[in-house]
Amino acid sequence: MKMITGGVCAAKGFRANGIHCGIRRNHSKKDLALILSDVPATAAAVYTTNLVKGAPLTVTKENIANGIAQAVICNSGNANTCNANGIQIAQDMCALVEKHTGISAGDVVVASTGVIGQPLCIDPIAQGMDALVEGLSYEGSENAAQGIMTTDTTKKEVAVEFTLGGKTCRMGGIAKGSGMIHPNMATMLVFITTDASISREMLQKALSSDITATFNMLSIDGDTSTNDMVTVLANGMAGNETITAEGEDFNTFMQALNSITVALCRMIAGDGEGATKLLECIATGADTLEAAKTAAKSVICSSLLKAAMFGADANWGRVLCAIGYSGADVDVNKVGVSFRSNAGTVEVCKDGAGVPFSEEEAKKVLLEKEIEILISLGDGPFGAKAWGCDLTYDYVKINGDYRT
Amino acid sequence: MKMITGGVCAAKGFRANGIHCGIRRNHSKKDLALILSDVPATAAAVYTTNLVKGAPLTVTKENIANGIAQAVICNSGNANTCNANGIQIAQDMCALVEKHTGISAGDVVVASTGVIGQPLCIDPIAQGMDALVEGLSYEGSENAAQGIMTTDTTKKEVAVEFTLGGKTCRMGGIAKGSGMIHPNMATMLVFITTDASISREMLQKALSSDITATFNMLSIDGDTSTNDMVTVLANGMAGNETITAEGEDFNTFMQALNSITVALCRMIAGDGEGATKLLECIATGADTLEAAKTAAKSVICSSLLKAAMFGADANWGRVLCAIGYSGADVDVNKVGVSFRSNAGTVEVCKDGAGVPFSEEEAKKVLLEKEIEILISLGDGPFGAKAWGCDLTYDYVKINGDYRT
Repeated sequence: MKMITGGVCAAKGFRANGIHCGIRRNHSKKDLALILSDVPATAAAVYTTNLVKGAPLTVTKENIANGIAQAVICNSGNANTCNANGIQIAQDMCALVEKHTGISAGDVVVASTGVIGQPLCIDPIAQGMDALVEGLSYEGSENAAQGIMTTDTTKKEVAVEFTLGGKTCRMGGIAKGSGMIHPNMATMLVFITTDASISREMLQKALSSDITATFNMLSIDGDTSTNDMVTVLANGMAGNETITAEGEDFNTFMQALNSITVALCRMIAGDGEGATKLLECIATGADTLEAAKTAAKSVICSSLLKAAMFGADANWGRVLCAIGYSGADVDVNKVGVSFRSNAGTVEVCKDGAGVPFSEEEAKKVLLEKEIEILISLGDGPFGAKAWGCDLTYDYVKINGDYRT
Repeated sequence: MKMITGGVCAAKGFRANGIHCGIRRNHSKKDLALILSDVPATAAAVYTTNLVKGAPLTVTKENIANGIAQAVICNSGNANTCNANGIQIAQDMCALVEKHTGISAGDVVVASTGVIGQPLCIDPIAQGMDALVEGLSYEGSENAAQGIMTTDTTKKEVAVEFTLGGKTCRMGGIAKGSGMIHPNMATMLVFITTDASISREMLQKALSSDITATFNMLSIDGDTSTNDMVTVLANGMAGNETITAEGEDFNTFMQALNSITVALCRMIAGDGEGATKLLECIATGADTLEAAKTAAKSVICSSLLKAAMFGADANWGRVLCAIGYSGADVDVNKVGVSFRSNAGTVEVCKDGAGVPFSEEEAKKVLLEKEIEILISLGDGPFGAKAWGCDLTYDYVKINGDYRT
């Protein structure tokens, strides 16, 4: 497994582009992205569990019901959700892809992200299609990654190279997500491409399994979006023997997928709205996987702890508090807490009670950009990781007046 | 039912006081409170569901296992939680009450609030007892209310007068709570007194029932504290016939209790850490009580909506989003949303989709200090209320560096 560049265009046969078509007022911000596979690809997806679902999700679900997709179109600046004509607009977006590329509208994954409840006009998209398709390129991942950003401050792109049965395969992904991030089944817009060959069933199995330990363990603000979606397109152009069952090849594929999804989770968490720090909570010693996950995610979600991390304050009582109300079945008298970063490790709590530590040293550890919160829950064999960010003035600023 | 003054001293036979004894560094902040009944009182309590529990809760639970209490002692500035000698310190506090007042240590409710995981020294409390007891007064509720404050900016006191079988009864309460507020079974330190006579069983029944629609519907930051506790002391000095069963008197008592608890909920929400606005979400039309409560509480807890309310931004998509991920069984296509305040009412969403509204008018409504978020969930008969506050820069500031 080797990290490489190229994002969603790292895998063979994928072109991408992103442009400003006019949905967003700021002309320097791209707002429309397209990803195309040269050949039809096996497709899998997971969607938000929010009862309020963006119209594009409904259309995408229908389109990939047959397990095949060849293109992804996505706009930012408007979520196309809670609009009376949302389904029609999402279908129109697919029809535009067919008209301009020849790929059947039924093979298009469509997505939207931005404000909820404001009608989305098809005109700027229709007018932008020529430029969008003309600019498609095998090096266009970065443009596409920019086209799906909303309050994101950095583009989120990653790719890996791996080998299946002697064949070099590649997989890459782009993501957007900065606020309204507390995925449950999927997260806000992640598009992954691979040239590995894999059956539809095994692709969905890989994705559905992976997200339980990755995107479902990510939270920026506890708000599960209406438009969350993760899709994987596998076009088979690497020429490996198609993966159709569990085994060594499937394991390798899962590892590749996991390295993509974990990297994207960390990018999303680190670029949380207003965030100055990436937080990673690493739970160990739990009696069950569920307890490890529940405790780790509760810590990452605590507003009080998030604010303390912003202030580089080793207020470990808030870690204990968050474990205690999480619902995880743990013996609080066995809980230990340490903070770790590039500046070192400081143990602050053992067996449920405080241990003496240097406030100065703790401050140094917590002033770093990436903080690990290590929680040991006992002597059990299970562990889990969760990702989040600090709570800052800028989160309030960004969300105090997002629409206007 | 008549609102009156006097707080926990409104009911006959209750004295109270609060002083600065030295637990908090700031000499102008009181940090120790005492409430005494002239006669033994029937006692009921509910406690936090956090697995990490403050030591005082364990001691209180033991002390009122027999349904009797006569005094409440409470310090602020230190939660006496996650400390190796916490139980001993809490017992010592009760013993000090016995030594200085003659009331048996076993009849004392003890509570602590403040930082978790820092040893609490008994010395300042022991040294303050003389002044605390000397200053006890039938007009001392305000001092006690101040003595239990931490990051609270206003004292929280309320009282009512009502009649049971021709006898005038009174009930009053004080509360503290500003951060780490997301009660489940009880909230951060509420002490209620009444001179009504009621059996132990009916008092606990009244309290346990009431909090499901009051304190359990309150959230400031989603963090369920380790030290939450609500206690009621009923000393019977009003001379009414003891309430021992359901009926008209019990209903009147429940109404009195509810008017106290709702008033305190609103005070706590309005004084949430950093809050500039009190938010009240009023759900109607649900098919089940559970759906109404779940939806209302989810709206109140959404960080995104809370930030939008801070910015007076009528971003109703976030209300829909929060209802959608709440887990409540609702038909999102029937959901309506309006914002209401002293400046008027503005409807923003009907049948799950936006309706045209004046942004200017909405701004005017949302610039008020108390905002009602009205959510209609369909044609069902159930409703619920939940209370919270906006998310502001000051919440981050207060919690970014609380300990130092």
